[in-house]
Amino acid sequence: MKDRAFEGNDLGVITPRTFCHESAFLLRSGANLPGFELVYETYGKLNSQHSNAVLICHALSGHHHAAGFHSKDDDKPGWWNNCIGPGKAIDTTRFFVVTLNNLGGCHGSTGPCSARPEGMGNWGPDFPTVTVEDWVRSQALLADHLGIRQFAAVIGGSLGGMQAMQWSIDFPERVCAAIMIASAAKLTAQNIAFNEIARHAITSDPHFAAGRYRATGENPDVGLALARMIGHVTYLSASGMGQRFGRQLKSGDLALGQDVEFQVQSYLRYQGQTFSRQFDANTYILMTRALDLFDPAAAYGDDLVEALSGAKAKFLVISFSSDWRFSTERSGEIVHALIRAKKNVVSSVIESEHGHDSFLLPLPRYLAVLGTYLRQLYETLDEHAP
Amino acid sequence: MKDRAFEGNDLGVITPRTFCHESAFLLRSGANLPGFELVYETYGKLNSQHSNAVLICHALSGHHHAAGFHSKDDDKPGWWNNCIGPGKAIDTTRFFVVTLNNLGGCHGSTGPCSARPEGMGNWGPDFPTVTVEDWVRSQALLADHLGIRQFAAVIGGSLGGMQAMQWSIDFPERVCAAIMIASAAKLTAQNIAFNEIARHAITSDPHFAAGRYRATGENPDVGLALARMIGHVTYLSASGMGQRFGRQLKSGDLALGQDVEFQVQSYLRYQGQTFSRQFDANTYILMTRALDLFDPAAAYGDDLVEALSGAKAKFLVISFSSDWRFSTERSGEIVHALIRAKKNVVSSVIESEHGHDSFLLPLPRYLAVLGTYLRQLYETLDEHAP
Repeated sequence: MKDRAFEGNDLGVITPRTFCHESAFLLRSGANLPGFELVYETYGKLNSQHSNAVLICHALSGHHHAAGFHSKDDDKPGWWNNCIGPGKAIDTTRFFVVTLNNLGGCHGSTGPCSARPEGMGNWGPDFPTVTVEDWVRSQALLADHLGIRQFAAVIGGSLGGMQAMQWSIDFPERVCAAIMIASAAKLTAQNIAFNEIARHAITSDPHFAAGRYRATGENPDVGLALARMIGHVTYLSASGMGQRFGRQLKSGDLALGQDVEFQVQSYLRYQGQTFSRQFDANTYILMTRALDLFDPAAAYGDDLVEALSGAKAKFLVISFSSDWRFSTERSGEIVHALIRAKKNVVSSVIESEHGHDSFLLPLPRYLAVLGTYLRQLYETLDEHAP
Repeated sequence: MKDRAFEGNDLGVITPRTFCHESAFLLRSGANLPGFELVYETYGKLNSQHSNAVLICHALSGHHHAAGFHSKDDDKPGWWNNCIGPGKAIDTTRFFVVTLNNLGGCHGSTGPCSARPEGMGNWGPDFPTVTVEDWVRSQALLADHLGIRQFAAVIGGSLGGMQAMQWSIDFPERVCAAIMIASAAKLTAQNIAFNEIARHAITSDPHFAAGRYRATGENPDVGLALARMIGHVTYLSASGMGQRFGRQLKSGDLALGQDVEFQVQSYLRYQGQTFSRQFDANTYILMTRALDLFDPAAAYGDDLVEALSGAKAKFLVISFSSDWRFSTERSGEIVHALIRAKKNVVSSVIESEHGHDSFLLPLPRYLAVLGTYLRQLYETLDEHAP
């Protein structure tokens, strides 16, 4: 397994597994899924008390492959490999880490790309609306399957942080610590607007074909690339982009009558094209809708304090100074509500120039805060040795 | 003329005129235009000394029709009617106001929609790249035509402010005051990125047809609407959008299995669709390129102080607290360069929740600053009475 020169603190080769839920699953929208599959990975070992499990919830474009490699020849590790592994902030010598591809995803879990139960092609655009609450309930079923009654921690960034919050509300007895990173209690109108433009870019691509593009053999690559370009700019900070690209030219010279292309233009187009080859358009729409709809306070008279009042978890809330898509103010709203609800809450604002993307990056102070919090949490668990 | 109930401080019915420049005009790109036409409007009276002329430079989607009405039945005045008129901040009882549609525009001036000189259809995508410097030189020819040796003020917001700055650099003797509102000495990488995505949305619309959509009878409405939606979100502030739209629903109820639509989604789509019926796609690309390319310091070793050192104008620099597309920091850079270049500069940061759009809105403090500055300027002119 270690023919390839993995780093000493990498997990090596990881094989995804599939959890099949065979009975009906009623979604918040009222639609009834006749069962579903979730692709998941685990890292580390579940201890005998089953007290050291950590759930990682992914964000908009994430999936189950959070750490390690899928083969010896794999040149890219999972999306959060800098954070998860032996000796890392989420330390797999201590914790049993569970990661999954959410319901509605396009990396193996039941979603728009899956075959319809009646055997009439795939779901495509007819896959029902999925909400953060639905995800959390499906994750709880996966936890049951794995014999995990309570997670030591549920951790997520961005949309993943929303799932961590929902876990603390819907399953107060099953979460020891909820860790919300670069997240928010609900989207702002500006955030919804950016999501709407991204969806509009996808649905107005003629190849989208009202979501039935699998039947035509053409993919809405152009719309999906545009959606990603819009997202990508908003995940970076203005100053970070300035430092990285400035006004550097990629090609051209106006004085020679040539078209000028700036570095940042070429970078964005590349990002968009790469993404459109890897992601499903219907899933992108579904995931952004789940983001828009998340609003746990709505069921409590728009009172977030009330919504969180039944939570029994302790909370860690992390945000990043230059994140304008999920700003420190949004995390501050969560922290203030938790304080007013008399919860145990620790919060940290990390100085970073990398905008919303910061939550995916190996920023030393960020990983130190997360690692320290989890190490202290581990000391309080029922049993330490695996 | 006043059958219609115009407001007492409105200009009434205004008739655009056309300036024809009959000889060749060499652009910065090296391309040579065999003459051009500029559509323009004037308000107020040029005094006998020709000292009271004010030039208004428009922004990305603006044009010559800045104030007054085009007919008695016109239900919408010009785009800056709240600022220009008798007794208003730009007071037409004092000043002779000149406004025009820039070269490359789509409201009557020579541009991509115009017929090619060789009589082979219209220019379309072959219209040469136009820069802020080219605009300023073409505006100077219009000034010659109108008998204006020196403008009392050159005024513009956003891209218009860039023209005001370029005037002060290229024609130091011809500008008494340059007024730059919500502008910048150059775009940031983030700004270029948003422009790039907007252009990409247009050019990847199949109806764009490499810019030759006039020949097909189909317009790239979808791409142009997307471009406008992207622009529009960035012209508003997050808090302003929050106050205006919040998370209000336009329609739908998830609990009833319906798709939910937020107010902000419907608003954005309407804005996009309206714009795509009124604006030319090739012009949109041309105008955003001019924005990207503006960088007067580049010719002076990236030293803005050096670039401005030859200016003889006095300067007023206005920015808005919530404008993140052309932030107060960008205006601050201009102000600091002007101070270091020992110029007469007044600057004002206006508190506003309306983002970049603020420069078009009748904000009392903003109009008071502008009006006061211009009133004082008027007192210093050679001759006061028209």
